Amino acid sequence: MNLIELQKQYNEFKALGLKLDMSRGKPSPEQVSTVERLLTAVTCNADCFSETGSDCRNYGGLDGINEMKRLLGEMLGVGSDHIIVGGNSSLNLMYDTVARSMLHPVEDGCKPWSKYEKISFLCPVPGYDRHFAICEFFGINMINIPLYEDGPDMDMIESLVASDETIKGIWCVPKYANPLGCTYSAETVRRFAQLKPKAKDFRVFWDNAYVLHDLTDTPDELVEIFSEAGKYGNEDLFFEFASTSKITYPGSGVSCIAASPRNIKRILNALKVQTIGHDKLNQLRHSRIFKCYDDVVAQMKVHMNIIRPKFQIIYETFEKEFEGVDDVTWTIPNGGYFFTLSLPNGTAKRTVELCKEAGLIITPAGAMFPYGIDPEDSKLRIAPSFPSCEELATASELLACCAKLAIAEKNSK
Amino acid sequence: MNLIELQKQYNEFKALGLKLDMSRGKPSPEQVSTVERLLTAVTCNADCFSETGSDCRNYGGLDGINEMKRLLGEMLGVGSDHIIVGGNSSLNLMYDTVARSMLHPVEDGCKPWSKYEKISFLCPVPGYDRHFAICEFFGINMINIPLYEDGPDMDMIESLVASDETIKGIWCVPKYANPLGCTYSAETVRRFAQLKPKAKDFRVFWDNAYVLHDLTDTPDELVEIFSEAGKYGNEDLFFEFASTSKITYPGSGVSCIAASPRNIKRILNALKVQTIGHDKLNQLRHSRIFKCYDDVVAQMKVHMNIIRPKFQIIYETFEKEFEGVDDVTWTIPNGGYFFTLSLPNGTAKRTVELCKEAGLIITPAGAMFPYGIDPEDSKLRIAPSFPSCEELATASELLACCAKLAIAEKNSK
Repeated sequence: MNLIELQKQYNEFKALGLKLDMSRGKPSPEQVSTVERLLTAVTCNADCFSETGSDCRNYGGLDGINEMKRLLGEMLGVGSDHIIVGGNSSLNLMYDTVARSMLHPVEDGCKPWSKYEKISFLCPVPGYDRHFAICEFFGINMINIPLYEDGPDMDMIESLVASDETIKGIWCVPKYANPLGCTYSAETVRRFAQLKPKAKDFRVFWDNAYVLHDLTDTPDELVEIFSEAGKYGNEDLFFEFASTSKITYPGSGVSCIAASPRNIKRILNALKVQTIGHDKLNQLRHSRIFKCYDDVVAQMKVHMNIIRPKFQIIYETFEKEFEGVDDVTWTIPNGGYFFTLSLPNGTAKRTVELCKEAGLIITPAGAMFPYGIDPEDSKLRIAPSFPSCEELATASELLACCAKLAIAEKNSK
Repeated sequence: MNLIELQKQYNEFKALGLKLDMSRGKPSPEQVSTVERLLTAVTCNADCFSETGSDCRNYGGLDGINEMKRLLGEMLGVGSDHIIVGGNSSLNLMYDTVARSMLHPVEDGCKPWSKYEKISFLCPVPGYDRHFAICEFFGINMINIPLYEDGPDMDMIESLVASDETIKGIWCVPKYANPLGCTYSAETVRRFAQLKPKAKDFRVFWDNAYVLHDLTDTPDELVEIFSEAGKYGNEDLFFEFASTSKITYPGSGVSCIAASPRNIKRILNALKVQTIGHDKLNQLRHSRIFKCYDDVVAQMKVHMNIIRPKFQIIYETFEKEFEGVDDVTWTIPNGGYFFTLSLPNGTAKRTVELCKEAGLIITPAGAMFPYGIDPEDSKLRIAPSFPSCEELATASELLACCAKLAIAEKNSK
């Protein structure tokens, strides 16, 4: 179609007065309705005790109840001694971990991060906007690292952390990375495990948000980081984060931080000042409906069956609509909540703008990059989970129309 | 009794091999069993929506659901526009507020607190050990302020905050103050409302932990701080904290911060980086069992009837055991979770030690003072809520015996 035809098609979409939102990785109402049993997992006083007999209604239990630590440990492939159970938000645990590091030394003999004149985090891009927001909030400089199909550019990472003491951290989503959907290869994980940072207080923020969130029957495999790092005496380098937000309830799940026993001890020393303990009743509810790891895996299959068709609808639309259009590609991940649409340089922002004018909200172009700047203005994050299949069919057609119109506009200049 | 007789009595206690704990203000199993209905307040998918229709299972709602904001506002006597609902811990909100102030300016045109060479908090004493622990954790200098029956020494506070720009905060428990049990008088609140701090980024941490926690039919009245401060344009000076920890479940209640709409906006700007939102399902459960303020008041009567006899048992024992013993007094508050036993100078620590050796754990002497130092070594915090009445009868007799022995030991030197 030429510019005129595309404009005509776009105006037809506009006339529909649509109101669609494909902006966030939010589970759908159908998904959150699949764990109704969580609401009635603990219903009477006699039921409120953990396996060690602790009263989950009362104060105490800073690191969480045993059965929840065990379950989260199994999900991440680590022992309970590596786990502190948090509240309902792993984002909050990441924020807290950075905040704590700003004011208290991450490692013996180091200063708190806020006492350095300048510190930096490495940010594989495209990445997760809320990671970058934490850095921006605390005034931490961000350095872009290209993210490929097998993980971030390890040559660049190794060389930067080995030479630059101001680099204190890196944000990683090692499995089904938001928004590409790729998983770090065994080789990438091995190279992370062997990192030799110049800064003694450098840490890897390993956000394993999609650890069990497969979308196909050929899921990716991620090598467990602590056993790998242990081989090189490097366990202390990693803070891992996860939650049941996209397993049970996004708003009322259970989060955790995983770390070496040495780091766990350091964190608990600070945590005991911060709180008397997180919500143990909700931990108990979770461990009652998930008696073992396999129960969680079964629940994830339920989610997969709801989400997979949604990705498919968009893939099919894109295949049809972008046929013959140059420089348009998209990732097809085996799991997670997102995939990435790559457009010709300089057309992503305009596409988002056109979508918005026609009633479709998608993640702002640039949001997956530090400071909101996609240097090539070419990447769009596609989040299929929340809308219904019918809405997605319309939304993806509209999105394709907007992208093609943006491309045509650019080419006509 | 003389020293020999007291030693004999003490050894008899010791021979009993007791194991009693009266160290923390923890609600008893009987108390937490009074809100069983909270467990089944939300039991099916259709039930999971707030009054505005928001799905409490899913992401969103940074400041909490309407009905919970309204309820907490009514409890504190402020409008919903003054409330942000938190997670299960008001301590965590206080910690977060201090942590945030360390790294981000509390007020326009000011530096973050951590950028000053030295900052101080005023600490009415005796006070709450966890407040002091937060200051110690962040390296904030603490200055003792005497606490009287009608509140802290306001002359001292007014003069210090007006003249010393390094003073950035004060910890207040304005009602049934932990551990004296006193309530700030209307005059004290009025003077707080009119404070003219030299530091623009000075804030009052108004920990209203016991706002509805009466123990008698003649409860204390606390003047509401925001309406009072509003008269003098001083609303921004106050951060108020409260929770349902001692109304429903200590481990799984709902907390809140109350502040001026201007401060609420500042806090939300930071909070949106920290989390996607707190647990709304638990907020919904709470607002389902407490449809209005009166429902909360009714629940507090239930608690009162359980706790009051426990205080009574100890008072009666003390009256009998300390009869004729010089310089021993105790407070008899109208509410809260504690009262304070005052012993002759230099005997509190020794009393705690003797208790411990005989199997009774009480709050360490000094814990109610910054840096753990009671300059007179005379104050003990009594926490009657958790043990059973039978245990309290024994514990209070043992405690009296230990105190008298410590006094006799001192006098014999």
